[in-house]
Amino acid sequence: MVRGHIPSATVSRLPVYLRCLDDLSATAATCSSEELASLAGANSAQVRKDLSYLGTHGVRGVGYNIEELRGQIRQALGLDTGYAVVIVGAGNLGSALSNYDGFSKWGFEVAALIDNDPEKIGNRVAGRVVEPFSELEGIVTERRVSIGVIATPAAHAQAVADRLAAAGVRSILNFAPTVLQVPAGVEVRRVDLSTELQILSFHLSRDAAAG
Amino acid sequence: MVRGHIPSATVSRLPVYLRCLDDLSATAATCSSEELASLAGANSAQVRKDLSYLGTHGVRGVGYNIEELRGQIRQALGLDTGYAVVIVGAGNLGSALSNYDGFSKWGFEVAALIDNDPEKIGNRVAGRVVEPFSELEGIVTERRVSIGVIATPAAHAQAVADRLAAAGVRSILNFAPTVLQVPAGVEVRRVDLSTELQILSFHLSRDAAAG
Repeated sequence: MVRGHIPSATVSRLPVYLRCLDDLSATAATCSSEELASLAGANSAQVRKDLSYLGTHGVRGVGYNIEELRGQIRQALGLDTGYAVVIVGAGNLGSALSNYDGFSKWGFEVAALIDNDPEKIGNRVAGRVVEPFSELEGIVTERRVSIGVIATPAAHAQAVADRLAAAGVRSILNFAPTVLQVPAGVEVRRVDLSTELQILSFHLSRDAAAG
Repeated sequence: MVRGHIPSATVSRLPVYLRCLDDLSATAATCSSEELASLAGANSAQVRKDLSYLGTHGVRGVGYNIEELRGQIRQALGLDTGYAVVIVGAGNLGSALSNYDGFSKWGFEVAALIDNDPEKIGNRVAGRVVEPFSELEGIVTERRVSIGVIATPAAHAQAVADRLAAAGVRSILNFAPTVLQVPAGVEVRRVDLSTELQILSFHLSRDAAAG
C-alpha cells in the first residue's frame, strides 16, 4: 500500500478508534461512524474524515466492516511490525512500565530494562533482569531496539536521550518532566503526568470561578 | 482577576511554558518569546499569542519578566489552590504514581491511595497506607478530594469512574486504556501509554517506507 499523507491530529486519534473497534468487535461485525464517534468521544464527521485518509469509506446504511477497519488502522500505524522497546530507569515507574501489558497487546516487545544503579542491576522486575546502562549500545544493536522509553529522574533524561539517539534509536517516549533536545530525525513523545494534572487544575479553578 | 476565555490548546501548552520558565529562572530574570519558544518546542508567534490570553505582553527589547510570568501562569492554571488527589489502584502503576514527586511539586497533594484487594489494603506504599475502596466516598468528602486518578486494570476503570463521579469528584485522570463515559461536568484526561507508543510506531513505519 502506498500511503498518502496523514495529518498528525488524525494519527493521534487512530489509536483511540482502534481501541474502540477492539471493544466493538466482541459484539458486532459492522459499525457506523456515529457509533464509533460516540465511543471515541469525537464527532462523526471527524471520524469519517480521519478514516478517509486510510482510503476507507463506510457503506451507506451499513457502516464500516470492523475487522477490515482494524486491519487498516493497524497497518497505517505500523503495529504489525513488532518494534522492540528498551526501558531506561528501573525505579517505580520503570518497573510499572515493565509490567504494563499494553506493550505486548499492541505488538511492542520490551527487549530490556536498564539502569545505572548497581543496587538495581541484576534485580528481577516482571520476570526480567535489570541490565546495566553501560551496555545500552550493544543492547540496542543486538536486539534491534527501535523505541527508547525514558523513566529516569528529570536530571538524567537529556543524557539518556543523547545516548539513545547516538545508539541509533529514532523514537523516544519520555516520562521525565523535562523538554528534551534531540537531533533531527528523532521523534519524541512525552507522557507527562504533571501536564495533565495542571490542565485538570485549570478546569477545576474555572468551574470554581463560574460557580 | 476576572479571566477571559482561554482556548484549550493554549491551556495544554501553559504547563510546558511553566516548566521551561522554571528552568530559565535559575539563570535569568527575563526571557524573550523566542527563547521560551525554543525551549518549549513551539514557535514564538504562538507563545506571544498564548501568553496574551493571560493579559501578558512582553516588553519590546526586554521580553517577559520570568517571575511575573510564572505567577500569572500558575494563577491561570489554579496551581496555588492545592487540590487533593486520590489514587485508585495500588498495583505497580498506582505505587509508582504515589512516589511521583511531580504531584507535590505542582501543588497537588496525594490524599489517599486505595484498592479493593484485601492483599493490598493496609500495605505501606511510599509512606502511605493503602486504604479500602469501600471507603472512597468518606475519603473524598473528608479530605476534600478534587481529582481522582484511575490506575486500575481497564476492566474496572468505568466502575471506578462511576463511583468517583457519584462521590462528587469533578476531575479524573485515567491511566487505564479505555474510554470512560462520565456525567456532564466531569472532566476526564487520559494518560495512555499505548496511544503514544502507537503514534511513535506510525512515525517509525513512515520513516521505513520513506527509505
